[in-house]
Amino acid sequence: MSFKVLSAKLAAAADQELMSTGGFSIDQLMELAGLAVAEATHKSFPLLKDVLVLVGPGNNGGDGLVAARHLKLWGYNPSIYYPKHSSKPLFQNLETQLKNLDIEFISSLNAINNYQLIIDSIFGFSFKPQGGIRPPFNEVIQTVNKTSIPILSVDIPSGWDVDDGFVEGGLRNPDVLVSLTAPKPVANHISEKTQHYVGGRFIGPKFAKKYGIDQYDYRGYDQVLKLSKI
Amino acid sequence: MSFKVLSAKLAAAADQELMSTGGFSIDQLMELAGLAVAEATHKSFPLLKDVLVLVGPGNNGGDGLVAARHLKLWGYNPSIYYPKHSSKPLFQNLETQLKNLDIEFISSLNAINNYQLIIDSIFGFSFKPQGGIRPPFNEVIQTVNKTSIPILSVDIPSGWDVDDGFVEGGLRNPDVLVSLTAPKPVANHISEKTQHYVGGRFIGPKFAKKYGIDQYDYRGYDQVLKLSKI
Repeated sequence: MSFKVLSAKLAAAADQELMSTGGFSIDQLMELAGLAVAEATHKSFPLLKDVLVLVGPGNNGGDGLVAARHLKLWGYNPSIYYPKHSSKPLFQNLETQLKNLDIEFISSLNAINNYQLIIDSIFGFSFKPQGGIRPPFNEVIQTVNKTSIPILSVDIPSGWDVDDGFVEGGLRNPDVLVSLTAPKPVANHISEKTQHYVGGRFIGPKFAKKYGIDQYDYRGYDQVLKLSKI
Repeated sequence: MSFKVLSAKLAAAADQELMSTGGFSIDQLMELAGLAVAEATHKSFPLLKDVLVLVGPGNNGGDGLVAARHLKLWGYNPSIYYPKHSSKPLFQNLETQLKNLDIEFISSLNAINNYQLIIDSIFGFSFKPQGGIRPPFNEVIQTVNKTSIPILSVDIPSGWDVDDGFVEGGLRNPDVLVSLTAPKPVANHISEKTQHYVGGRFIGPKFAKKYGIDQYDYRGYDQVLKLSKI
């Protein structure tokens, strides 16, 4: 079975609708998205504490910053690599929250092998691989690819094409993919071995129907659901 | 044992600090507070689905609105009684989110006995009982007190004095109290039978120490912890 997916165009429209007629602020949505990422991390790697969060310049990066905060409060030890800071107030505030928790912002990846897990929140569904991956993220991805550290990717594996999957220069296949709102087409191109979670428990049945996505059968108060390809 | 508590004055200062040097927006904090309330509801009453949320005009009411959204998405059937709408954009947006999920806003409490559970998010720690409880909330509370429906109170039982506890005209003793950030002094005045949860998993050790409150031993990815008086 393949996943019902949300194209990049529809994903952008869905985000836009959530934040206009949906009444959500980006603060709320990012909080819930980041929480979903943190929960998927906890479910997938309950024993790994030293987490490196690779943060890109856009909203995908913001999801990673929120996830790092939750993980720290849950007893993990996240460090942040965030080479292209956003100057938007929301992002600066997320940085403040992390610094108040004594979360380390590292300035190079020289010690990458000290980490047990990498959270890839570099690029999201709006990344276009046609122009290549701009520095420093091209090198960041190559540095990660030289390691065997497990990777959890936020929404799409960074550097991949949202529709067609892996592109030369992109991240190696992640161990875990956390699709936000709903899987993107790229989810049907990841390895069968990749654990796939969906985190979109902020949308209701009418919204799911309008966008042609599944209403997932989340459990209890979980913000994520592990999907199966079977 | 009694709970280490946060006085009303310190609770206001803590909120203020979280939203200034803490870098949190009210959207984020309310989202996490409402999520904690919803989780405590799920843990306390997993089988009760028809929930009436009584929403006051301030931030305590906003926590209830957020909780109602999560509960609906978790399979509950919440209805909202919200006689004094806030005109603040955040609150109007929370209403929009609920209406998009087809959550009913009821205009009277005539059918109160149809509900299995009442969430009391009328007044929070800044309520002062000296001036009496203003309409329509005085009557709302008396209407609730004539029922035997279980009550879950958000942060403090409505109409009570945050320091001294029950005041004539206040809500009957709640079955569950969800203290947000940390217990207020009123938590030491509730019945021994009341289940008491704390939901403050957005603050770190330094912050807790500064305000003289406990760093609670939350589990897994829970946003709440059940406290014991033993």
